[in-house]
Amino acid sequence: MPVDPNAEIEVVAFEWVPPVARGRVRDLRVRWALEEVGLCYRTKLISAMKRPDWYFKVQPFGQVPAYHEGDVHLFECGAIALHIAEKDERLLPRDPAGRGRAITWLISALNSVDPMQQFCNVMFFHGRGMEWPNEARPVVDGLIKRRLELLAEALGDKEWLEGRFTVGDLMMVATLRDIDRERIPFPPSLAAYVARGEARPAFQAALAAQLADFIPDEEGVPA
Amino acid sequence: MPVDPNAEIEVVAFEWVPPVARGRVRDLRVRWALEEVGLCYRTKLISAMKRPDWYFKVQPFGQVPAYHEGDVHLFECGAIALHIAEKDERLLPRDPAGRGRAITWLISALNSVDPMQQFCNVMFFHGRGMEWPNEARPVVDGLIKRRLELLAEALGDKEWLEGRFTVGDLMMVATLRDIDRERIPFPPSLAAYVARGEARPAFQAALAAQLADFIPDEEGVPA
Repeated sequence: MPVDPNAEIEVVAFEWVPPVARGRVRDLRVRWALEEVGLCYRTKLISAMKRPDWYFKVQPFGQVPAYHEGDVHLFECGAIALHIAEKDERLLPRDPAGRGRAITWLISALNSVDPMQQFCNVMFFHGRGMEWPNEARPVVDGLIKRRLELLAEALGDKEWLEGRFTVGDLMMVATLRDIDRERIPFPPSLAAYVARGEARPAFQAALAAQLADFIPDEEGVPA
Repeated sequence: MPVDPNAEIEVVAFEWVPPVARGRVRDLRVRWALEEVGLCYRTKLISAMKRPDWYFKVQPFGQVPAYHEGDVHLFECGAIALHIAEKDERLLPRDPAGRGRAITWLISALNSVDPMQQFCNVMFFHGRGMEWPNEARPVVDGLIKRRLELLAEALGDKEWLEGRFTVGDLMMVATLRDIDRERIPFPPSLAAYVARGEARPAFQAALAAQLADFIPDEEGVPA
């Protein structure tokens, strides 16, 4: 089990989030990458509800995760996942062509798929009680649906986007699973792709570790 | 001048876009990176208005740029910029700490700043004639404004985000300059940062090269 209080690598995560966000906070992606390559890490937990002032010096937007390893200080799950992938051929092929494709998919997840999902989050968290999300949602859902169809075409009948699992799949699966599949039906091949990712032992271990770190509900919502 | 019809590197770009998009299409970022390190490239121009079917095999979402160099076939401006940066210390420091910070900022531009700008594009292009953008825009603008303030704090009085120019600044400046500064006033230090980026000879050369590639207006809107 990679979580080890004596590990050199430190991942900053939240001590508590509302149920809707559990299993979705982005330290999950970093934990998943670390699990895939068997690297130990410790966690430093901060409040999501009242983010400490000092943390904005570490992460300018107050988001998690952040990552510390010796004199390497990173934030952004994509940058951290790439840093971890550089260490191990299992996440990032060594040949330039394969390496380039893996990184292409990682960036594609973050800049061509995730932004639409972020828009859903804005509607959910910042449009609450307002009218506009009712009219905007079908527009955004339509854009997401089209992207998913095109992504399914790119996947074809392959197991992973480039045949073998890479950090690009890790980021794409993590991004796709944040989309509300009840509202936006997935093409079957893409749903199976996400399920394959979620079935990986490393993903399961990462998910369990994230959930285990949250303050238990019986202790109440942290102040 | 890096544009050379005999260059090995090929960048796919659009042959024509409406005036509002000129100087903003994302092959600009790739051209800029190539100019910074003095690498020659040729362009292959495709229709933006009627994207060819074959191109969706190259870029699943039909976006530009795509990039070909021998057996390396990439898409996503972030992945391509990183690939180019790997070739030259001027864009990507060689020490692990500096390298990690540059990549962190590149990803931050693409996943924490650009998505907000993508919402503005969705409102502009897909919300036209609808009511919801009127109510949504102040919400989204408020979120962008907050991010810009926090980014300005991270920049402080430094010339570049980590002191020296890297591919992280390239991507951040390119992302920031797509934000409508008339609607969302920039903190002065951030406006000066963008101006510094735009003043770089490599940026100016890349911008001129993109604009020169568009079919002239006097030839009419391409079918």
